[in-house]
This record gives sequence, structure tokens and C-alpha cells, in this order.
Amino acid sequence: MGGDTRNSRWTYARAGVDRGRVSEALKALLREVRYRPPPAHGRPVEVTGHYAGMVRIGRETIAITTDTVGTKVLLAAELHRWEGVGEDVVQVNVNDLAAVGARPSAFVDTILCSRPDPEVFRSIGRGIERGLRASGCALLGGETAVVPDILEEVDLGGTAIGFFPSKRSPVTGERIRWGDAVIGIPSHGFHANGYTLIRRLLEENRVDLSRPREGAAMPLGEELLQPGRIYTGVSEALAGLPEVHGFAHISGGGVRNLTRLNPRARFVLDGWPAPEGLFEWVQELGQIPGEELYQTFNTGIGFAVIARPVRLSALLRRLARAGAPDARVVGHVERGGGVELPHLDVRYEGYA
Amino acid sequence: MGGDTRNSRWTYARAGVDRGRVSEALKALLREVRYRPPPAHGRPVEVTGHYAGMVRIGRETIAITTDTVGTKVLLAAELHRWEGVGEDVVQVNVNDLAAVGARPSAFVDTILCSRPDPEVFRSIGRGIERGLRASGCALLGGETAVVPDILEEVDLGGTAIGFFPSKRSPVTGERIRWGDAVIGIPSHGFHANGYTLIRRLLEENRVDLSRPREGAAMPLGEELLQPGRIYTGVSEALAGLPEVHGFAHISGGGVRNLTRLNPRARFVLDGWPAPEGLFEWVQELGQIPGEELYQTFNTGIGFAVIARPVRLSALLRRLARAGAPDARVVGHVERGGGVELPHLDVRYEGYA
Repeated sequence: MGGDTRNSRWTYARAGVDRGRVSEALKALLREVRYRPPPAHGRPVEVTGHYAGMVRIGRETIAITTDTVGTKVLLAAELHRWEGVGEDVVQVNVNDLAAVGARPSAFVDTILCSRPDPEVFRSIGRGIERGLRASGCALLGGETAVVPDILEEVDLGGTAIGFFPSKRSPVTGERIRWGDAVIGIPSHGFHANGYTLIRRLLEENRVDLSRPREGAAMPLGEELLQPGRIYTGVSEALAGLPEVHGFAHISGGGVRNLTRLNPRARFVLDGWPAPEGLFEWVQELGQIPGEELYQTFNTGIGFAVIARPVRLSALLRRLARAGAPDARVVGHVERGGGVELPHLDVRYEGYA
Repeated sequence: MGGDTRNSRWTYARAGVDRGRVSEALKALLREVRYRPPPAHGRPVEVTGHYAGMVRIGRETIAITTDTVGTKVLLAAELHRWEGVGEDVVQVNVNDLAAVGARPSAFVDTILCSRPDPEVFRSIGRGIERGLRASGCALLGGETAVVPDILEEVDLGGTAIGFFPSKRSPVTGERIRWGDAVIGIPSHGFHANGYTLIRRLLEENRVDLSRPREGAAMPLGEELLQPGRIYTGVSEALAGLPEVHGFAHISGGGVRNLTRLNPRARFVLDGWPAPEGLFEWVQELGQIPGEELYQTFNTGIGFAVIARPVRLSALLRRLARAGAPDARVVGHVERGGGVELPHLDVRYEGYA
């Protein structure tokens, strides 16, 4: 960023997470991986840049996603509250299954820790249970690695698999076209990403987590540890409908996640909400530029549905029945590429 | 252990990894997880304590395993050699698929790091490629988490899924009975477990990793970073044969892994090799009691096949054709429970 006048403005890169550098390293890894197994080992479904990998095994298509809750665990450790991040480790994964329209089936967790504390594990277990119940996954195993030389606290990751019930195809975004509507489903606060930046701001401003921020009902620490919303019910209700063209899970990468769906669509999010409540509070705390904010956090909409703009009220009624009466149209699709929030003067061309 | 005379003897617990404590914490977590999804989300296959979780989806049974390479990454970091652990992150997972007789299909990796270094990622990618080629897996995605506040170096984990080709059933050990033979397949050195103990010993004894140990051809550091052997070819060659009753991947837990197969079988490993080469060298370095050694490392046999003792020479020929001409009978099954190495005066009753 540079320039003295901007020194007070925080970005994710300034907090230590440079998305460009991650992308470069990942490309270096992927360039080395060229092997394609013989068909007797299953047939990978080629979908570029999507939320979940997919492989055709016999008559089934299996989707797989893996993710961690990142540094949100450090806030959990500081406040000795682990149930929320336990739920989040399921949430971050099943929402990526939801984004391809796969029905969640099974989950495995990975806990790295320096010392296995039964109380911490019990709370994590309670959260995992909530996540499984909300998404319909069975816990099929996991890994507990005691690695005191690698980390001091805990890291929490997992992998979920899902499938496509009879006749349902993966929802890839391929059929998205100009004129489609973008429906947004609100989030319950931050998703489990961007906490390296959030924690830096809390620290720098010596924020007292035991008190509510102005206008909030619960202590700030508790508010920041609320688990993310689970959107598998939304996906289950809509996947397979011919008018539903794409789903996006708005996690790390913020609204840029939409660009993963279709490179020939321009997502004009003229109804995307300006940050309110906790999002607004964090933006002000870090003087985070809008352009940085929308590519780092969900800012109030955690999942998007792209659909043909016919029978929209029927879709919204269906969403209401599936537990999302708060869904609403937040934008539309034009010809071109990228994402823009015209009312907020923000534009992005690609994902990373 | 206690007792002054034993102070020089190392155990895994003394190095910071207490298996009993891990087991206790894990039980606390699992007690909270009671949810069983409705059948429309797939039907979990109940197999107690096994290497992989399994779920029936439509007409397919999908097996899933997740594991990390643990603190072996710290040795990789010290020596700036990442290809071996890249291969290991596939190996630790696909060998657990091999142990249930599942054919590997897809893999996802998780890299946690403080700073994504393209050179490190490229080497890891090269190793992952080798692991995929050896096992027939496609890389279906992954997660790169930049978490400088959680760890300083790198953590490397992954998840593999596999399936059972037409008519093959999961190999669970249920059919194991007294009189069965235990065939051992040699390992290529240590598997990616127990490195917290190995590294402690190297450190305490100020071992020079750039020079070979006595009798070895390559520098010790390189020898310790050799990737583990991949046994999926062995499993593919034997799974489904009626005389093959069980497979065991000898990783963390050492020979105790056999007890996971069948609680009513006593595995008498009277032909299990005494530690040689690198294993003997490490045992001497740490004055590791035999009882501790065999429950922590593979000590020379990395995979075991339990089979009816008929047509054994045909089985061994089949193993030779599948890339394991070094397979040999190392024990047999008696009535009872647990594992014993009578010639080495070691006995265990259960897994943990």
C-alpha cells in the first residue's frame, strides 16, 4: 500500500497473510502434480477452481472438501471457549459441499495440539456434534496429533464428503448467464477466516473482549466466537432445480468467491449490504479500506444463489421453508467477468 | 517409569507424547458425538477401531482416512528437504486405506505454514506426485492455511478416500481365527510417526545428521527422511481373496495395531525381526526399552497380512508379483487377545 497517509489502514497482507503469495506457492505445488490415475481408480470430475473436488466412483459422484478454522482457535484458546470453533470445523467444510450442491454424508476431523486436554476436547466434541446435526454428516474418524514441537495451542481442521442423490448433478455455475439474479443469504457474523487480521486489530487497540461493543447484547469475545451459519439446508432445497445455476460460499476471498463460478459472468452486487454491526465495528477499528474488507470477509452475506430471474418469489418461499426466510435479491449478472459493488465503488476482476 | 537406574531410558511419553492421555481426551470428544444421520445421507458402516471410516452411498462403499506426517516435517525443515514428507503425507493415508482393502481414489492435502515458500511447496508437490503415482490417487483439492500465529514452520496433513471394486468387501479382521498365519512386509525405515522421540534423541546426543551412521550408505538426515513404503499394491493384490482375513498398517502404536483387527485373536509374532540397522541404532541411542520400541515404531515390518495357512506359497508368490518379494511369515494367531513377541519377551493386551 505505501504512503504515510495510509499507515493506519489495515489489510490482510499487513497482518501477515498475503493472498498473492499463497496463490504463487500453491501454483508451484500444483505444477508438480500431473498424475491422473487409471479409470479403475475412479474418474475425477474436472471443474476448475471450485469449492469441492469430485470423483465418479461406480454410479456415484463423491464430492470432497477440506478446510481448517484457521486462527479463530487462538481466540477460542484465549477465552477458553471451544464449542463454537468445534461447530465451525464442520461448517467450513459442509458449506463448501453446499456450494456444489452435494449432500453431506461424512466428516473426519484433525486436531493438532501440544497437550491433549480432555475438557477442551469435550467442548470441541459438543461443537462438532452441533455441526453434524445441522448438516446431516456422520463422524467417520479423525486424527489427533500431539505435536508440542510444532505448535503451542490447537489447530482444528477437517474433511467432509458428500454425494449427489439420484439424478442431481453438481451445481457448477457453468449455466450462469446474463440477467440471472443473485440471491444472498445472511451470515451469523464472521466465518472462520480473516481472524489473523481481526486478532491483530483487537490486540493493537487493546480491546476488552469481556464487554459488549456498543449496540451489542453479548460480550465481544463471545460475539466473535459465534459459529458460522450452515447453508446445507439451503443447498438441499435448491440443488437440482433447473432455474438454479450456481451457489457461492462467501468465505476467505469474500465476494471474490463469486468469480470462481463462471469466468464469463460479471456479478453486479448492487444490493449487497454495506457492513453493519460487528462488521462495521471491525472495519472502523482497523480503518480497513472497502476493497480489502469485501475480499476478506463475508460482511453480512455468507452464501449466494444465482438463479434465472423467473419464479423468484417461489424460490424465496422455498428458501424460507428451508430455514432462510431472510434470503433476498442482492444483485444480478451481466456480460463480462469479475465482481462489482457499484454503490460501494468496489470492483474485482478475478478470485486471487 | 521412575527409578534412578532407568533415567537414561527414553519413552514416547518422556518425549512429550503420552498415548494414554491422547486416548482419554479423544474419548471425551467422542462421548459428545452421538448423532447418526438419516439413511438418505448415507449409511455408515460400523467397524470398531479400524483404520478407515466407511459409509455406504448408493451402491458404493466409500472409505475415508485422515492423517498428518507429524513432527517429521521439523526434520525436513532443518535439512531443507521436503520431497520425502510430501510423499509421506500420501503414504500415511493410503496405507490406512490399504489396511481395509479399499482401492485408493482421491486425496486432498492440508498445508499449514507461517509463510508460503514456493520452493518448499514445489518440493512437497513433487513428493505428493510420487505418492499419488504409487497408490493410484488423484489430487482433488486441498487447503493452504497461512497461520503465522499458530506455528513457525509447516504442518502437513491429508485425507484419502477409496472404494471397494465390484464384489470386494471391506477387509476387517472379523474372520481372523486361531491357526491363521501372519505375513509381514518389510518397511523402508521409520514411518512418519514417533519423530518427536527420534528428534529428542538426535538433539540430546548432538548427532551430526550430515554423516552416515556406521554401516549406512547415506547421511543420517537423508536416511531419516526417506518416505515410508506404500502398501496399496499389496492390498490390491490380496483384498477379496477368501483366505485373506486381515491387514494391519504398522504405524503409530507399532505392533499393537494388530489388536485392532480382532479382540478374540492373540497375535504371536515369533518371527518378528529384532531391530536392525536404523531401528537398532535409534534404540541404542535412546536406550529405548523393547516394550516401548515395538509399540512406537514399525521396527522393520510396515504392513501385515493375516491369512488362512493354506496355499501360503501361492499367496507369497502373488505378493512377489505385487512388488513385495520380501514378504515372509512372521507369526501366527492363537486363541485369546493381544499381541506377543515371545522371543523378545514383549506382550501387549490392547491397542492403547
